[in-house]
Amino acid sequence: MQVSEITWSETERKIVREVLQRAYHRETDTLIQVVREEASHITELKDLWKLHDFLSARRFDLDGKYDDRDSEIIFVFARLLKEGWLQLDELQGLAKDKISKVSALSRM
Amino acid sequence: MQVSEITWSETERKIVREVLQRAYHRETDTLIQVVREEASHITELKDLWKLHDFLSARRFDLDGKYDDRDSEIIFVFARLLKEGWLQLDELQGLAKDKISKVSALSRM
Repeated sequence: MQVSEITWSETERKIVREVLQRAYHRETDTLIQVVREEASHITELKDLWKLHDFLSARRFDLDGKYDDRDSEIIFVFARLLKEGWLQLDELQGLAKDKISKVSALSRM
Repeated sequence: MQVSEITWSETERKIVREVLQRAYHRETDTLIQVVREEASHITELKDLWKLHDFLSARRFDLDGKYDDRDSEIIFVFARLLKEGWLQLDELQGLAKDKISKVSALSRM
C-alpha cells in the first residue's frame, strides 16, 4: 500500500493528534528560546537582519509542516523523528507497520 | 524652486552625509534595543510572529529611507525630523532656506 493511502483508526487519530501537538510545542518552544538567546546578543544591524531571515525561514517552514491529513501523517512523523522533535516510542499504540514506515522514512 | 531641484554645495554635502549617518545610527541602534527588549519577553509563538512582522516592516522601511540623492535630501531630513531621529539644530551650516523647507515639510 502506498504510504499516502494508509488509513487511520479513531484510536490512532487520537494518538496522532497528541503526538503532533507535543512535537509542535517542543519545536516552537525551542524556537522561542533560540530567538530570545540570539536577540540578546545582537549589537549590529546585519545580525538583526540575519535574525529576520532566520524567522522568515522558520515561519515558512512551520506553516504547513504539522499537516495532519491522513495522507501526510507518516511523512510528517518521519520528518519530526529525523529532526528530533519526536521519539519513536511516542508512536506506541499505532499499528506496527506504520511505526516501521515512519522509522524507515526518517532514515532517508 | 522645486524642492527636488535644490542644489548642494560641497560643504553642505559633507554636513548632509554626517547628519544622515548620525541619524541612521540613532535609529538603527534604537531598533536593535527595541528588538532585544521585545524578544526577551516572548513566551508565545504569536508574539514571535509579531516580532517577525515588525522586523519585516522596519527592514522594508529602512531600505531606501536614508536616500542621499540631491533631489531627496530635504524630504529625508523632514521625515527624520518628524520622527525624532534628528534635531533641527543639527542642520546648522546648510543654507537657511533649506533648513526652513525641512522644518516646514516636517510639520506636514
